[in-house]
This record gives sequence, structure tokens and C-alpha cells, in this order.
Amino acid sequence: MILVNGAPGEVIAVTDRGLTYGDGVFRTFAVRGGRPQHWQRHYARLRSDCTALGISCPDETVLRAEVTQAARHEPDCAARITITRGPGWRGYAPPSPANPTRIVMTSPLPQYPSDFAVHGVKIHLCALRLGLQPALAGIKHLNRLENVLARAEWSDAAIAEGLLLDAEGNAIEGTMSNLFIVEHGALATPDLTRCGVAGVTRERVIENAVRHGIACDVAHISYRRLLEAEEVLLVNSLIGVWPVRELAGKTWAPGSVAARMRLWLDEEND
Amino acid sequence: MILVNGAPGEVIAVTDRGLTYGDGVFRTFAVRGGRPQHWQRHYARLRSDCTALGISCPDETVLRAEVTQAARHEPDCAARITITRGPGWRGYAPPSPANPTRIVMTSPLPQYPSDFAVHGVKIHLCALRLGLQPALAGIKHLNRLENVLARAEWSDAAIAEGLLLDAEGNAIEGTMSNLFIVEHGALATPDLTRCGVAGVTRERVIENAVRHGIACDVAHISYRRLLEAEEVLLVNSLIGVWPVRELAGKTWAPGSVAARMRLWLDEEND
Repeated sequence: MILVNGAPGEVIAVTDRGLTYGDGVFRTFAVRGGRPQHWQRHYARLRSDCTALGISCPDETVLRAEVTQAARHEPDCAARITITRGPGWRGYAPPSPANPTRIVMTSPLPQYPSDFAVHGVKIHLCALRLGLQPALAGIKHLNRLENVLARAEWSDAAIAEGLLLDAEGNAIEGTMSNLFIVEHGALATPDLTRCGVAGVTRERVIENAVRHGIACDVAHISYRRLLEAEEVLLVNSLIGVWPVRELAGKTWAPGSVAARMRLWLDEEND
Repeated sequence: MILVNGAPGEVIAVTDRGLTYGDGVFRTFAVRGGRPQHWQRHYARLRSDCTALGISCPDETVLRAEVTQAARHEPDCAARITITRGPGWRGYAPPSPANPTRIVMTSPLPQYPSDFAVHGVKIHLCALRLGLQPALAGIKHLNRLENVLARAEWSDAAIAEGLLLDAEGNAIEGTMSNLFIVEHGALATPDLTRCGVAGVTRERVIENAVRHGIACDVAHISYRRLLEAEEVLLVNSLIGVWPVRELAGKTWAPGSVAARMRLWLDEEND
């Protein structure tokens, strides 16, 4: 089901700046039993991403009610909230006052092979390198052409995800997931202050690691360092945790940290 | 008037990838006496930008007819063509087959003070720096948040445009215009292979310079070099040529190259 500004609908104005300039943000998350999972975290990120772009974020209660309404007939689903700066006309200057557009969409939960979580996934090293843009780094905004171009690099269904490096050769993330590596039993995850998207599951993993006494370094991680890691793990709100089994000829056996991380996340489910 | 896929309309599907990912391209140009100005050039750029993203560009005759139709009741107007990859659903992988969306919109020609062209404009040095992304450089795509953030840096109506530098401090363009500088009577314009948008008017100026025996170097131009130039000029399809009169405390008197450039462009009008 789709709600546009609270009403069932499937369209927006062609003058909406979300279309004309990608001037907006979004979040994708799971709904289970009619409840948006880790809602407070998703809303907090949505709000801070809106603030970073100077967009007024709709109230939490309004959005939560709309997610619940959209999921009424499919209590277990994926939901996406999109907030744009709203209609504009020609020109980059933000309209004043702006009238943000909110879109809540639900769709079936993606059905990934259960094997992905158990035995791990084969991933592709993307040729596209992420550009460095501190002003937009971390934000889940609508300017996603880098992800689109990277994802278009492979069509082999046996490849589950693509690894993105930045312009300087640091490993940053998957096209749709965040990245962790395991070294001597400790975790590390890429610094996202120059590019990349800061996902809610990444945040949860970092917090859980601290809580369980496992170090988690947020750092620049070179591609070489990643290849030498004991485990490489991909996370997001819909896939949970996927261990990487194969990348560029290098292989890994499923490790113990992936299993522990999955347990942390499962225990925490709303 | 707005045409969406050839039919009068004002909306697109919220699942259109132009909205969900900024997965598309656009062009803005003038229509005069019902004729899109420099149409072949604009279409060629639109097509090559589509190709760069792997989007199938609609036929030239189809788009031209739609521009003519949209401008029927306002023969002198600004037109914008947007081509997106079309509807998709969740996930970055391009739909196959894709069904691109085309949007043709007309609006009144912007009315800039005539003083801008004659005495020049005051411009703002944007704090936002353009990130380097060779895979997207030059393309007029829908991922325009850098321009949006840069344009939001000032609201003083006396400031006509903002100058964008790249991450390394090279002058690249205005938020909505391309840039030329004059040194010892010769022209130079920023290299756009790492960021920036390659506009049709920039292309015309480069070709005209050659034709009139004036050197035009495509180069990395540092901010310092720009400040020391004899003239600094901004161009696009709607503004024509604006000399820069003031930037960061430095001032320029209108120079002779601006006037010659305007003459070149005027003579060439379709």
C-alpha cells in the first residue's frame, strides 16, 4: 500500500523536488506483526537526515500511524518512508515556505536464500568508487546514482552484493548494506564521514558490541585490510547479517562473530 | 504545460526511479517563437547523458514534437526535459526491461535584471565543495543535492549566483551555470572530467572561440587563478553571458570578451 501525504495514492507532482533534484531522504525497514521494527532509531535517523538538508521532518506520531495504516493488510512487510522538500519550480533555491512531501510504501519482505545467512554470500568488487562528499556523507538521501551504477555492474544471481570502495581505496559499504570486519576477535566498521550511508543496523551492531565487551573501531579500512580480516560481514535492516564467503577469489569460512551478531540483533527485536 | 510520456499530466508514479534514486537526467533550454533553441545540441547531450547511465533515450522526433506541443500556448518559454529510468520497485538493480519516463515541462522565461548582463553580477563563494566523481562528471543527472545545498547558502537577492569549487580547490562552475575566465585575452574553462555539468552554452562558447581564433583552454583552474583573471564569465542557456562584477571582495569592470561572447551566441540563435 502507498500513502502520499497521508492519503492512499500512487503518484506525486512532477514538480516535486524529490524528482527534479533528488532533494529528499528515505529509510527502509521491516514491519513485523504490524509493528515497524526499531522504529525510534529509524525515525531518529530520518529526522537527522532531514535536518542535515534543511527539510522539516514530519512528526513521529504521524509517520508511525501511516506506516501502521499502510501495513494493515500485510503485517509482515518491508516499508519505505520518503521525505522530500516538496513541490518547487525551476531553480535550486529552496521554496520558502517549503511544503515537504511524505510517502509511505509497503512491499513484501524480500525472500533471500536462507543459505546467505548460514554459509555466507559471494560479493562483487565494484569498479565504481564512491566520491568523497562530507556534506552528504552518512545521509540516506535520494541521490543514489552511485549505488545504481555500482549495482548495474553485475547480473549474476549468485552474487548477492557489491563492495564499494571510496576514491582512495578504502572499503566503505555494500551497495545496500553496511560493512563490518573481524580482526583478532574485535570488530571494525568503516568511517562514514566522507561517503556512505549510516544505517540503523550498523548503529545497533556498534552499540551491541560495546555492551558485550567487544571492541568496535570506526576507522579507515583499506581494501587490503578487509581481505586479511578473519570475517567480513554485511548488515542491513532487511537482510540482518550476511557473512561474506567469497570476494575477488578470496574465500572465508563462516565465523563465530557473525553468529553472535545475529543473536544480538534477534534478541533486540521489538 | 506538462506532458508525461506524451500526455498532458502533472504527476508520476512514486515508484519511478527518478524519484526513488534520482535515476535520470534532464536539460533546460529556451524556446523562442515556438522553436526549442539549439535543439540538436540539447538533444545530443540528453542522449549521451542517458547512454552514460544506461538509460534508453526517447527518439529525437518524439521529444521535439512534445516540446513544440508543450510550448503551443507560450511560444517564448523555458523548457525542461527529464528522462528517468522509469518505474521500479525496491532495490538498486535496474529493471529489465526498463520503461523510461519522459517529462516535458514549460514555464515562463526567467526575468533577470538586464543589468546583470551589462554591468555584471555579484556572486557568492560557496562553502560547499563539489565531490570528485568521474563516473558522473559532466552529466546533467537528477542527483543535484550539491547544487541545492550550495544554493541554500545565500538568500540575498543581490547575489545572482554561487561559485562552486571542487574538493581540491579548483573553480568548477556556478550552481546553475558554466564558467569561463579571460587571461591575456584568451579563454579558459574548467575541466569537467571529475565533477560539474557540461552545458550546451559552454560547448557553444568553446566552439565559437576556436572559430574566431581565440584560444580556449580546458584546464584545472585554481581559485587564485580565477581571482587574477581579467574577466570571469558565467553562461547557460537561459542567462546567456553574465560577467562577474564582484566575488569575495574582488571586483571586475565589464570586459570586452563578455561582449564578444554574447555576440557569438546571439548570431548563432536558431
